[in-house]
Amino acid sequence: MTFACVGLVARTGSESVVSSLRRVEQFLNGRCVSVVLEDSAHALLGAPDLPSCSREAMGGRCDLIIAVGGDGNMLGAARAVAPQGVPLLGINRGRLGFLADVSPDAIESEVGAVLDGDYMIEEHFLLEGHVDGADEQVQPSALNEVVIHSATHPSMLDFDLYIDDVFVYNQYSDGLIVSTPTGSTAYSLSAGGPIMHPNIDAMVLVPMFPHTLNSRPLVVQGDSRISIRIGENAASVAKASFDSHFEFQLGAGQTITITKKREKLKLIHPPGHSFYQVCRSKLDWASRVGE
Amino acid sequence: MTFACVGLVARTGSESVVSSLRRVEQFLNGRCVSVVLEDSAHALLGAPDLPSCSREAMGGRCDLIIAVGGDGNMLGAARAVAPQGVPLLGINRGRLGFLADVSPDAIESEVGAVLDGDYMIEEHFLLEGHVDGADEQVQPSALNEVVIHSATHPSMLDFDLYIDDVFVYNQYSDGLIVSTPTGSTAYSLSAGGPIMHPNIDAMVLVPMFPHTLNSRPLVVQGDSRISIRIGENAASVAKASFDSHFEFQLGAGQTITITKKREKLKLIHPPGHSFYQVCRSKLDWASRVGE
Amino acid sequence: MTFACVGLVARTGSESVVSSLRRVEQFLNGRCVSVVLEDSAHALLGAPDLPSCSREAMGGRCDLIIAVGGDGNMLGAARAVAPQGVPLLGINRGRLGFLADVSPDAIESEVGAVLDGDYMIEEHFLLEGHVDGADEQVQPSALNEVVIHSATHPSMLDFDLYIDDVFVYNQYSDGLIVSTPTGSTAYSLSAGGPIMHPNIDAMVLVPMFPHTLNSRPLVVQGDSRISIRIGENAASVAKASFDSHFEFQLGAGQTITITKKREKLKLIHPPGHSFYQVCRSKLDWASRVGE
Amino acid sequence: MTFACVGLVARTGSESVVSSLRRVEQFLNGRCVSVVLEDSAHALLGAPDLPSCSREAMGGRCDLIIAVGGDGNMLGAARAVAPQGVPLLGINRGRLGFLADVSPDAIESEVGAVLDGDYMIEEHFLLEGHVDGADEQVQPSALNEVVIHSATHPSMLDFDLYIDDVFVYNQYSDGLIVSTPTGSTAYSLSAGGPIMHPNIDAMVLVPMFPHTLNSRPLVVQGDSRISIRIGENAASVAKASFDSHFEFQLGAGQTITITKKREKLKLIHPPGHSFYQVCRSKLDWASRVGE
Repeated sequence: MTFACVGLVARTGSESVVSSLRRVEQFLNGRCVSVVLEDSAHALLGAPDLPSCSREAMGGRCDLIIAVGGDGNMLGAARAVAPQGVPLLGINRGRLGFLADVSPDAIESEVGAVLDGDYMIEEHFLLEGHVDGADEQVQPSALNEVVIHSATHPSMLDFDLYIDDVFVYNQYSDGLIVSTPTGSTAYSLSAGGPIMHPNIDAMVLVPMFPHTLNSRPLVVQGDSRISIRIGENAASVAKASFDSHFEFQLGAGQTITITKKREKLKLIHPPGHSFYQVCRSKLDWASRVGE
Repeated sequence: MTFACVGLVARTGSESVVSSLRRVEQFLNGRCVSVVLEDSAHALLGAPDLPSCSREAMGGRCDLIIAVGGDGNMLGAARAVAPQGVPLLGINRGRLGFLADVSPDAIESEVGAVLDGDYMIEEHFLLEGHVDGADEQVQPSALNEVVIHSATHPSMLDFDLYIDDVFVYNQYSDGLIVSTPTGSTAYSLSAGGPIMHPNIDAMVLVPMFPHTLNSRPLVVQGDSRISIRIGENAASVAKASFDSHFEFQLGAGQTITITKKREKLKLIHPPGHSFYQVCRSKLDWASRVGE
Repeated sequence: MTFACVGLVARTGSESVVSSLRRVEQFLNGRCVSVVLEDSAHALLGAPDLPSCSREAMGGRCDLIIAVGGDGNMLGAARAVAPQGVPLLGINRGRLGFLADVSPDAIESEVGAVLDGDYMIEEHFLLEGHVDGADEQVQPSALNEVVIHSATHPSMLDFDLYIDDVFVYNQYSDGLIVSTPTGSTAYSLSAGGPIMHPNIDAMVLVPMFPHTLNSRPLVVQGDSRISIRIGENAASVAKASFDSHFEFQLGAGQTITITKKREKLKLIHPPGHSFYQVCRSKLDWASRVGE
Repeated sequence: MTFACVGLVARTGSESVVSSLRRVEQFLNGRCVSVVLEDSAHALLGAPDLPSCSREAMGGRCDLIIAVGGDGNMLGAARAVAPQGVPLLGINRGRLGFLADVSPDAIESEVGAVLDGDYMIEEHFLLEGHVDGADEQVQPSALNEVVIHSATHPSMLDFDLYIDDVFVYNQYSDGLIVSTPTGSTAYSLSAGGPIMHPNIDAMVLVPMFPHTLNSRPLVVQGDSRISIRIGENAASVAKASFDSHFEFQLGAGQTITITKKREKLKLIHPPGHSFYQVCRSKLDWASRVGE
């Protein structure tokens, strides 16, 4: 796959992001690659001559998206571009990220390698949620996790869990995290979930402070249908939260069903990427003696 | 698949096992199915007219093995019959088991249903371990887990972990559990590992009392090659334990590689089996109100 | 200590509570003990001849309070009567409770034993919280725990922890639970805190889904001053919740200090009470073989 | 308390230890303080003119012991000197330690401050174990923890736990850790126990991979009598391990009782010591922004 037109998105509010954005734009220009800026990145650069469009429209115009920022910025870009199947590459400002892994100091060499065809592509699935009986115009999606939680903390949530229409358990807890492998190193990990390699086709369900001590993280196939039915007598209201970015309410007796989204994120890594090396860096795992 | 010859294995040392063994033998006899008893089951029944053979030879003579006992008994039968590809059915003495799930009170109806072709078959993979440079005659295998641990507790183990020849981390701990989905409800669960649905093609690596607080259970693809290299300066000796049944020593600097075994266990469940129902029963998960 | 006047409080909304309330009132009447009903218990019984008063006023009129309901009901009664130093006894409707441990079937024998002076008294301390610069009329207290959490889940909370004015750590998490020994078998336990025997003079601080994997429950002396300073840049608002019953907001930069309340709850147990027996019953710990 | 005679102990096998040992000896000599070397430290220094004696005899001759090494070295010194009530100060080679907290670069200033009377003394209790019916000549003790574990891993241990002669639970697990507050940042922490401030008068009991999911760390008063009775039918043998240093076997049906030792370790910290600062350093807790 060669990349003739590259779209650029960026996190706002940081000088270092602007500097990296300018550097990647100049590098692409030097390589005679067409560049389209997302509207807010366009404003950041202050480059009136460059074409720009909305984040949602970029997928139709570009054959590669480069996002400058951190993993949070990548989550938003991923949700926007995954439906069009355009691959995404991240330039990381800050510590090495799980999703954005081009170092700002290595833009020329690593983006250059990608333009030369030297890269690996890694598919990451997203989740989507459907509420029974709802007339859904906007379909929320999540690259990391969907969290079903009590909207009126600290009152607990009472819900029934079904997987592929088979009853699993009734639970009384603060809520439930349904995480992708991508999200397994984020909120799910804080809640006691396992780390899952990105190439695993599975989700993990992690109970949040369950009232019973017997409830543990549960790993199920990626194609599973996860249905959560809020208890009838729930005095409190539940909320479904997608990547901590979008959320809506669920009433007593309502059911939300979470499934894998058909379109996947195509994430590009520069050559030499290793998931375990990122884990060592981000989670302070020990290296071999002498490294 | 129809079953013309059934092999019977049983746990010794329990009157209730003998009683169930007799009951299933009589039922099979009434259904005109040939029966072969494993040597120790033959001794239990005291039936000189019935043919008998070793556990290892049963796979070649029978097209179904029925084991009477508990999950421990099933583990041994599974390791013995998996290489021949003969399916295994368990009659459980005690509480509902994850592997043995025919109730002793329902032998006629449930074994009858299986003979009539009304059953589900579930494949469970096993693990095997190879030590570098070892001339292995006997290949140990495990249906639940391989545990690499310090042989001289409480001294800790220092080892390097590689997955598919990629370095993952150095760890200083009591050891590491490499578990199949089948084993995820056994020792791995006690050590903080997640529950994995039997149909997941994955292993989980669970650190045992790691010295660092950053090490968490790690779920990787079932086809992964897990290599554990014992530290050079390890004053203590390591052991590799297979299903807590077979073990051998590992010296300083030696590497053991754990992979999925080619032949899988074909486990038979009577109609109506549900993994989640077994979880609810064994782990005391809550049922819906009114159940 | 002899009990000449007993106050009765009760949970509303349950027929079985009314029945036990009537039974204890009749028993006390037969023993010629004066009875005062809390207003809502008075309404439940529909006994116009019996004296009644508010929950807060009972401490001044009675020398023993009996609460009929569950542990939730006991929490409210405890917060109300602890300041006056009046002892509290609980009649439990439901499973054996940690706080309410007279069985409804044993009202006559166990309340009778208590009136005869055959009981044990167990002191339980409460927590109170002060916000810097606040003009506090009402002083909230908690018998189980104070929870400092993000008011706008799922956004995380950024705070600094000080103990006795010594800086402990900065944390980025969903919040922090500060629990008494009494609360150590409640919400704190769900969040991974240890069980603490009621006679320990200590608090436990349990981080809620901390972003770092290094943060663990921390047990400190009961006389410690726990100060939590909400981060300056916190976009989200924090809340302090007392026994999941009373809560108020904390703004960016504000500090809440949690300390042991001077007055303690005097909890009465009938003879034969054992904390560990209640644990076995509530947490399904195994008994000795044959029990 | 002034210190006229100081005993020196040291870990063997490290050049940096010898260098620090020499430096502290010269400093003490310059301050006209008498120095006695433990036999192995004497050998390390190769100073035939200096007096030496056994570790056990040092308590009778010195009024302060200085140990050079790490926390492991401190554990041994603590067990040896605690019975005589002689205070202990540690010079740490390596990272900041929980017990040894004088930096090798600050020997003159910090040991000097201690000699000038500017220090804090912190009492740490030790544990001792008695086996019923045993004729004990040597009484083992532990500053960190006593571990009761299966001697034939991976077979599990079946035992009954009693606290102050009250039955607590039957457990089926790899074993049980009984830890002091001092040990709460060591092996107990790896096993999921809470961190306990050194001034807490409590022990924590941490189950090791319990078969049931309901068993959690339990904090009890420091004066508790912890009795562990090995199951009658235990095929495997149990071991009791003290600070991973001394261990002995326990047979089926035997009971070991663990209690606080009467004599405490008097640990000396130089001025400015903070337990929480050591936690931040050793456990990578976050500091305030800007630190």
